[in-house]
Amino acid sequence: MELKKKIITMAKDAQEASRELALASAKLKNKALVSMAKSLKANKSFILSQNRKDIANAHKKGMRGSLIDRLMLNDKRLNEMSRSLMQVAALKDYVGETIKSWRRPNGLLISKVRVPIGVIAIIYEARPNVTSDCIGLCLKSSNSVILKGGSEALNSNIAIYKVLKNAARRFKIPLNAINLIDTADRKAIDILLKLNNYIDLVIPRGGESLIRSVAAKSKIPVVKHYKGICHTYVDKYADMDTALNVSFNAKVQRPSVCNAMETLLVHRDIAKRFLPGMAKRFIAAGVELRGCEKTRKIIKGIKKATNKDWITEYLDLILSIKVVDSLDDAINHINTFGSKHSDAIITENKNNASEFLKRIDSAAVFVNASTRFTDGYQFGLGAEIGISTEKLHARGPMALEELSTYKYAITGDGQIRQ
Amino acid sequence: MELKKKIITMAKDAQEASRELALASAKLKNKALVSMAKSLKANKSFILSQNRKDIANAHKKGMRGSLIDRLMLNDKRLNEMSRSLMQVAALKDYVGETIKSWRRPNGLLISKVRVPIGVIAIIYEARPNVTSDCIGLCLKSSNSVILKGGSEALNSNIAIYKVLKNAARRFKIPLNAINLIDTADRKAIDILLKLNNYIDLVIPRGGESLIRSVAAKSKIPVVKHYKGICHTYVDKYADMDTALNVSFNAKVQRPSVCNAMETLLVHRDIAKRFLPGMAKRFIAAGVELRGCEKTRKIIKGIKKATNKDWITEYLDLILSIKVVDSLDDAINHINTFGSKHSDAIITENKNNASEFLKRIDSAAVFVNASTRFTDGYQFGLGAEIGISTEKLHARGPMALEELSTYKYAITGDGQIRQ
Repeated sequence: MELKKKIITMAKDAQEASRELALASAKLKNKALVSMAKSLKANKSFILSQNRKDIANAHKKGMRGSLIDRLMLNDKRLNEMSRSLMQVAALKDYVGETIKSWRRPNGLLISKVRVPIGVIAIIYEARPNVTSDCIGLCLKSSNSVILKGGSEALNSNIAIYKVLKNAARRFKIPLNAINLIDTADRKAIDILLKLNNYIDLVIPRGGESLIRSVAAKSKIPVVKHYKGICHTYVDKYADMDTALNVSFNAKVQRPSVCNAMETLLVHRDIAKRFLPGMAKRFIAAGVELRGCEKTRKIIKGIKKATNKDWITEYLDLILSIKVVDSLDDAINHINTFGSKHSDAIITENKNNASEFLKRIDSAAVFVNASTRFTDGYQFGLGAEIGISTEKLHARGPMALEELSTYKYAITGDGQIRQ
Repeated sequence: MELKKKIITMAKDAQEASRELALASAKLKNKALVSMAKSLKANKSFILSQNRKDIANAHKKGMRGSLIDRLMLNDKRLNEMSRSLMQVAALKDYVGETIKSWRRPNGLLISKVRVPIGVIAIIYEARPNVTSDCIGLCLKSSNSVILKGGSEALNSNIAIYKVLKNAARRFKIPLNAINLIDTADRKAIDILLKLNNYIDLVIPRGGESLIRSVAAKSKIPVVKHYKGICHTYVDKYADMDTALNVSFNAKVQRPSVCNAMETLLVHRDIAKRFLPGMAKRFIAAGVELRGCEKTRKIIKGIKKATNKDWITEYLDLILSIKVVDSLDDAINHINTFGSKHSDAIITENKNNASEFLKRIDSAAVFVNASTRFTDGYQFGLGAEIGISTEKLHARGPMALEELSTYKYAITGDGQIRQ
């Protein structure tokens, strides 16, 4: 009951603060962001000492090495977090922008104006850098934020939150706009996800199971992506070097992220020419290949890909390969087994490129480029708060523009409806 | 089990059809819409005979007169439905439009392109005109539609659906894009709302209880408005004639709709001058007035407004009135008790107008104009499928543009990520 009351009060206050924050000038917010960036560096030893507690606990609990790595902060990482905040300060401020404006025959002037969303809750795993990234992006976009990070990072998160809030305190930023739920109690999430009267949007960031559980429970709209099953389709009109380089990059450059390729589709007319060289490069890089029957006739000795492979996000140096009969087949495979994230075609044929762009139902569709480019920075949008595979509100990289909504401001001189 | 299987198949097929419909040309869709408009007139006697069955059943069940009126079709109403389809045919087609496009330093050309949402389910009450309106808007926006109308209108809906689908058949419109659930079984809705793998968006249209029940059950994103508690605030700098005319229009012109005014706020400095004349006009028009203490000192003999009044959508000739101490008070009242729909200020003071526009957190905020203008046609957007009081995806009138989403189409010449 105590926890429930505390979280409801937090959400209510956050809503009130969001209305004040909506009016803050870009200049003020940017000054606060720069000061927050500096304070991360100035308070390094405090943050790192708190992080060491989390790391020690994680070791005691026998946490996996890759997770401990994500949890760990050091000088370099704190500098990166600080630099991110500086970059956010330098980005364009969308709040208050007139998207369009027109006059009606009766004289009414209608303006569609960009405004903050209100209160955003972010639920994430034990990655302390997410804490400062989200505080920065929400402040810049004039949204109140309520953070609930993985409990393994609780000491680190509280430290970062305190440092940033203290820095904001010196400006006229409403402090209730920045919130962290400082308990490891999992009930907090259940309470939070019911508060649709105060919270406008929930963004879960993390593995598929976290995201599915948030989506199932939430009474608040959720923008999310479950997983990235990204494809590269090598068309029969592909340039061989482009196909080799782009496919290799999409799989190998950073296999653990959602925009890495998981399935390679190859047109049957080019398969014999393309696959042997491609396989050699992948195998030399330590990639485990799994193929359909036709693939296994060309690349000998690799594992068989089952139907499960087509819907598996490996997030690892594993790749499934399928030989397809046509562009149509490739498109159908992607729209059936894909996750609406990022998919690419390699082709020199303009018609095939255009068909692929039109018919693939994904957030980002590429011609002759690596799926790894689906990213706020790479698109030139600046820092992103996540990637959406939803159809509504935001699709693909969700950056500052997507952290806004709009309203209509209508000015008249006494118009009434007939 | 039979019903479940049927609805799942319908949704699956609708998704497949939506991919074909996404490629249909504007010309083809418009031809089909014109032909559908004509077929409503050509099949008048069939549709009216089916409607008479519904009306007879409704009388037997003792349905309220106002509901029977909404259910009833006649020559004039069918002509209106037909004209609506013609108007939709004439509207701009947003599908395929490039929203923006830019080149990155590495040469990648990124285009943000407008595309259909996919499959939209619409759940509504016994209003047969909604059936043809929604079929028209979804076809124009290249979305597959699944309709579930109130069971009291089942015969009428089936008739309209058959006539429109028959007209579409002569064009290359994928017929599985147009669907009606032709059962009165309420379980159909529960089944439908779980199909988030096939359906992208649910729009409930009707009373608050219908909308709340859909929102509570749905696994699919919902765009909705629960109710319209719209305010007009008469500032102390109001022009008296504007205040009288606009307030009167907002309440009286059509009290049964969501953009009608429910609460009138009046600055204390103008109350004594404004309220007596205003009250006279309202009372002459048969409006029941309910006031706060201060109001009741000025307008004698009216009922007391309780806290419940501030959150009640009367949809009738009833109005609550409150005297406020300041612009701030008015804004706080609206943001606290309003429904984020439509709110207006009457003032000649530019600063107050601008404060009100900035600080009211509603879909449509008016200066010196009637809240009754919140409407797709009145905004110049064309026919609307509903009005959203959500913050995400669509806010205010939801017309053809809001029935679309976007994707990124990225063209390169072999770019890989460093």
